[in-house]
Amino acid sequence: MGKNGTKWAVVGGGHAGQAIAGLLGLQGHDVKLYDVYPELVSAINAKGGIQMQDDLNGFAPVTLASTEMKDVLTPDREFVAVVIPTAFYDSVAEKCAPYIKKDQIVLLFPESTLGAYAFWKRAKGCGAEDFIPVACNQLIYCCRAWAPGLVNVNGHKEYVGIAAIPAHKTEYVVEKMRPFFPQMRGLKNALESSLTNFQAIVHPIPLVMNLSRVENKEEWNPYFDGVTKSIAAFMDKVDAERLAIGRAYGFELDGMVTMYRDMYAFCSGETIYDVLQTCSCYRKIQGWKELDTRYLYEDLPYSLVPMIALAKLAGVETPHMEAFRTISYMLVGEYLDEGRTFEALGFDRMTKEQFVREIVNG
Amino acid sequence: MGKNGTKWAVVGGGHAGQAIAGLLGLQGHDVKLYDVYPELVSAINAKGGIQMQDDLNGFAPVTLASTEMKDVLTPDREFVAVVIPTAFYDSVAEKCAPYIKKDQIVLLFPESTLGAYAFWKRAKGCGAEDFIPVACNQLIYCCRAWAPGLVNVNGHKEYVGIAAIPAHKTEYVVEKMRPFFPQMRGLKNALESSLTNFQAIVHPIPLVMNLSRVENKEEWNPYFDGVTKSIAAFMDKVDAERLAIGRAYGFELDGMVTMYRDMYAFCSGETIYDVLQTCSCYRKIQGWKELDTRYLYEDLPYSLVPMIALAKLAGVETPHMEAFRTISYMLVGEYLDEGRTFEALGFDRMTKEQFVREIVNG
Repeated sequence: MGKNGTKWAVVGGGHAGQAIAGLLGLQGHDVKLYDVYPELVSAINAKGGIQMQDDLNGFAPVTLASTEMKDVLTPDREFVAVVIPTAFYDSVAEKCAPYIKKDQIVLLFPESTLGAYAFWKRAKGCGAEDFIPVACNQLIYCCRAWAPGLVNVNGHKEYVGIAAIPAHKTEYVVEKMRPFFPQMRGLKNALESSLTNFQAIVHPIPLVMNLSRVENKEEWNPYFDGVTKSIAAFMDKVDAERLAIGRAYGFELDGMVTMYRDMYAFCSGETIYDVLQTCSCYRKIQGWKELDTRYLYEDLPYSLVPMIALAKLAGVETPHMEAFRTISYMLVGEYLDEGRTFEALGFDRMTKEQFVREIVNG
Repeated sequence: MGKNGTKWAVVGGGHAGQAIAGLLGLQGHDVKLYDVYPELVSAINAKGGIQMQDDLNGFAPVTLASTEMKDVLTPDREFVAVVIPTAFYDSVAEKCAPYIKKDQIVLLFPESTLGAYAFWKRAKGCGAEDFIPVACNQLIYCCRAWAPGLVNVNGHKEYVGIAAIPAHKTEYVVEKMRPFFPQMRGLKNALESSLTNFQAIVHPIPLVMNLSRVENKEEWNPYFDGVTKSIAAFMDKVDAERLAIGRAYGFELDGMVTMYRDMYAFCSGETIYDVLQTCSCYRKIQGWKELDTRYLYEDLPYSLVPMIALAKLAGVETPHMEAFRTISYMLVGEYLDEGRTFEALGFDRMTKEQFVREIVNG
């Protein structure tokens, strides 16, 4: 096992990175794992792998864990999975660039909004070969790493939408990934992946609108206690802006209400208030007790901010998104970096048509 | 008693209107009371006055209560006290205009921001004689009308700042009012009254930032539970904008922190968070359980909105005030009218200098 399987590099040893490494290890593949934390890397090397529990069970060998990218992205690696907060894409793209091979598939899990595009542009800017970045619009598992090398996985998604840059390689990637990730389905292109990411709406709005509960470390549920009618109605308006951006780029996207009803049979109703109130699997979720959470520092600068950038590039008005962004940066700006802004994406130097051509055709 | 004293007209029979009418009645004056509600008017006429309890005690005769302005603002009335939500100033100014006498003192309790100015302009526009509008920057008592004709008064303010339009008549008004309201102190002018009104900050921000608690009808305290560090820091920034507006109009105003420490000996600290956390008299305040409250529909459109208008007229940047206004109208706009906007105040047709001349010189 292990060394006889397909050779994978997994970049990122957080909850999701360990889960992906563990899944591949259980499947019998040869996995190398990169992470920035020496203690984590040492612990996994000492164990020789990752103990998986719950839905995926067993010991998953890891060939090598390292804090050195060159030791993980070795020339023998066939595929790369980048499983890190999208906030770190720029710096990790720089570190990966020298070692990425021509035509190598690089999965980006989950990319938030325009994460694959940003990773690809930065890596190319640092001299990377022509690789195939793959936008994955969500994680495959709900997972939690209790300790380095000990991961619980429970509940997997029925499907995960993916899109390669360029888009015509998406079906090739889906085929290539089927042995590892049979849940993957092709999206039209990486722009569709970005625009179906509603984390931008469903995390930061309940969080910022319940700041005092978070700072008081109260016991609360973000989607029942925290999303009352006025707040939900605001989310409906923000989601309508997301759909308008979609239309400007030629997509007839589903609204969040439809997406919730499709994801969960028990969700019903016509508004975000309705679907969240009937979303019984959210009943047990504990509200945030810290502002230093990726539901804020990731989902605002790297999901909502680039959606606003996409809107501006296409001339779509997004007053609700912008008002929420503005007040959020005023309230909790110390936890947020600028993120994937219009300028950071280079949108001030291209037209909508140029951008679409680039993200679709590579 | 009663008919032998000074002849007053009190416009408005809510909590504060009944308290003012009762105070004047207890002092032995001849009070007529206007209100829009026939049941309230009938009940007070049936009792022949208002029963006062707590800090002010006794039965206060009311000569006549009526829903007809002409029956209350009779030619024999020496003084007028308008004690209504400032949201209704325009319509009440129209109703009063035909009956206000030349040089009559008309107290406006409390005027919020630019309420006296707006009342005066509207009444004049409806053909009122040259009267003396008086901006009162707060109510004199904490009071509650438990039923028509039954008022509890507890806790009175040490002083209430007032300013006449024109400003040179303020000292004359203070002298005239001393027998009735010895707490009144002259402010520089009606603009100072407007700019010291921090209700614009201390009510709507905790309310909107805790919308979900309000809509859930939770038990909460608006100034302890509801104002955590991030929210308080935002209020500090909004208050700094208020001070900047003051400077643009030539005032060195006290910040809210100083005002709290001056009002309450037990308040201490350097930030709004500090003074609210140490404000023990706020400990027992119950959080709002309805959005249909004057702390929202009055303090946003008639306090914060005209402050932003004053800023714009003077070329002062108020990004925090504007961001808060924008998101509030998006979240709870159904409870808010447009309020005292830049245009409603006629600021689009005058310069800052013209406006200052008008509010100062009449």
